[in-house]
Amino acid sequence: MSAATKISTVAILGAGIIGSSWALVFARAGLNVRIWERKETSGTIGRIAAIIRILQGSGLEGDEHTLDRLRCYSKLEKTLDEVDYIQESITEDIDAKRRLLRDVQGHIGEDVAIASSTSGLAPSDMARDLDRPEQLLVVHPLTPPHLLPIVEVCPSPNTSATIVETTVAFMRRIGQRPMLLKKEIAGFVLNRVLAATMNEFFALVADGVLDPEDIDAALTEGFGLRWSTLGPIAAMDLNAPGGVRDYLKRYGALFKNVSRSRGVQSALDEAMVETLASAADRLYNGQDRAVRAGNRDLAIATVRRLKSDANRK
Amino acid sequence: MSAATKISTVAILGAGIIGSSWALVFARAGLNVRIWERKETSGTIGRIAAIIRILQGSGLEGDEHTLDRLRCYSKLEKTLDEVDYIQESITEDIDAKRRLLRDVQGHIGEDVAIASSTSGLAPSDMARDLDRPEQLLVVHPLTPPHLLPIVEVCPSPNTSATIVETTVAFMRRIGQRPMLLKKEIAGFVLNRVLAATMNEFFALVADGVLDPEDIDAALTEGFGLRWSTLGPIAAMDLNAPGGVRDYLKRYGALFKNVSRSRGVQSALDEAMVETLASAADRLYNGQDRAVRAGNRDLAIATVRRLKSDANRK
Repeated sequence: MSAATKISTVAILGAGIIGSSWALVFARAGLNVRIWERKETSGTIGRIAAIIRILQGSGLEGDEHTLDRLRCYSKLEKTLDEVDYIQESITEDIDAKRRLLRDVQGHIGEDVAIASSTSGLAPSDMARDLDRPEQLLVVHPLTPPHLLPIVEVCPSPNTSATIVETTVAFMRRIGQRPMLLKKEIAGFVLNRVLAATMNEFFALVADGVLDPEDIDAALTEGFGLRWSTLGPIAAMDLNAPGGVRDYLKRYGALFKNVSRSRGVQSALDEAMVETLASAADRLYNGQDRAVRAGNRDLAIATVRRLKSDANRK
Repeated sequence: MSAATKISTVAILGAGIIGSSWALVFARAGLNVRIWERKETSGTIGRIAAIIRILQGSGLEGDEHTLDRLRCYSKLEKTLDEVDYIQESITEDIDAKRRLLRDVQGHIGEDVAIASSTSGLAPSDMARDLDRPEQLLVVHPLTPPHLLPIVEVCPSPNTSATIVETTVAFMRRIGQRPMLLKKEIAGFVLNRVLAATMNEFFALVADGVLDPEDIDAALTEGFGLRWSTLGPIAAMDLNAPGGVRDYLKRYGALFKNVSRSRGVQSALDEAMVETLASAADRLYNGQDRAVRAGNRDLAIATVRRLKSDANRK
């Protein structure tokens, strides 16, 4: 039995929006969840119960025992009793996190992964004062993780390979989609991509091209609708007769020109085209293009119908 | 009756992937559609019929008369007989477009909008040789427009205000979501945003941070799932207790740092924060935050369920 499948009890440190959402992710996967917060009576269980009620019938609400698997504690030591995995989600304050993580290491074994939900702090910074920096890594979700499966797994150079592997396997086991970062980078991947997208919107508004009230529609009526079911590489693969290579031959100049117009050189060169096209081949080559296009059509049409039904309510 | 509501017959010039999809958009909205292509027998109607079959039951397939509203012609003059609106979707070749647009103007009245589907050519370039440049503008969809409602309406400095207004109103009437660009800019808005997003992904792959096979999942299991129902400004408004201003106070530095790390200055300054927060107030202020968060949860959960049902098939 691998380390990831043996995890049966997890600790949540900090029960704000992210911590509460994580608690649901773990509890609906059948794990015992021990939540650490200042007061045992602060209403966390009630908030999670409210989220579960909204999700009723969606398949993401867990079973009738989900809530029973949650326990709240105000004492850190008690919270950490016999836990196999820790998800830290306290406030984004490096000193507070360092202090807490040191305390945590005093109460747990060496093989327990300590994952931080931080969106902005580097794992190597957080691990600076730890006796065992190899236990720490970042597992950063989007908000809220009980709805959005992607999590970026960001080790520091000191995180042990075993802790990384166990964490990736564990995330997959509980139904999240782990994305392993191969190097530390400020902002990690998800928020860097968000920032790049938003900065272009901001520049277009500042340039007097775009009405700020159109930003959301550009995504909810456009790319978001597509990307909910079909990623951009899969879309390139479908949107030119010869796939990704053909698409980037036709439209690659556009990507480069947009970068250049903002004073930057795009990383899209011939080697990158080959890298992306090979990835697309590995991911999507098993299925006929016409079948994939039909599936895309039906998936997007169904999402649109869903939205228009919701708007009529 | 406004000019947009009087439009009853449209011409499609060029019946490739985009032109065929446009034909369905217009025909399902009840308009007569005259399609110009080299051969009247090139199978366009059959291809559109196949798309309609896939969409059966989705609400996007039109009615039993949708196909009857389509007619194909090989003669341009005949195609343009009594049309009220023209959507040009031939190959992305500036000379071919200029020639065609000149020919088109010989056969139509002065009040007919000539909209080009180009993704890369500037409307002022395309209009260079026209006797009446005021009739031309770009109406650029995402692929395919019969599924993705967003269209960017991009006038040249010479396009008449009446043509712009009629086109925007017409797009709204047929169920698309027009986004009016206030200035000409290379790449327009949609592909600039796509390029900014993708260039950051490419840079992260080139830096050895990200596995190229994770690009699609970052969107289909993350932002795409969110943005299919909730735009990024609406998400900022929900993801911090004090809305957009509060969110950007907490996380604005991230946006600026990502720009700076690529050698660019973000347009996110205090004035921009105010612009975005005001837009969010106008768009979303009517509804309680808890209700909006509940709606988001349910919408995303339903999209996820839809996807997992589709994968089981």
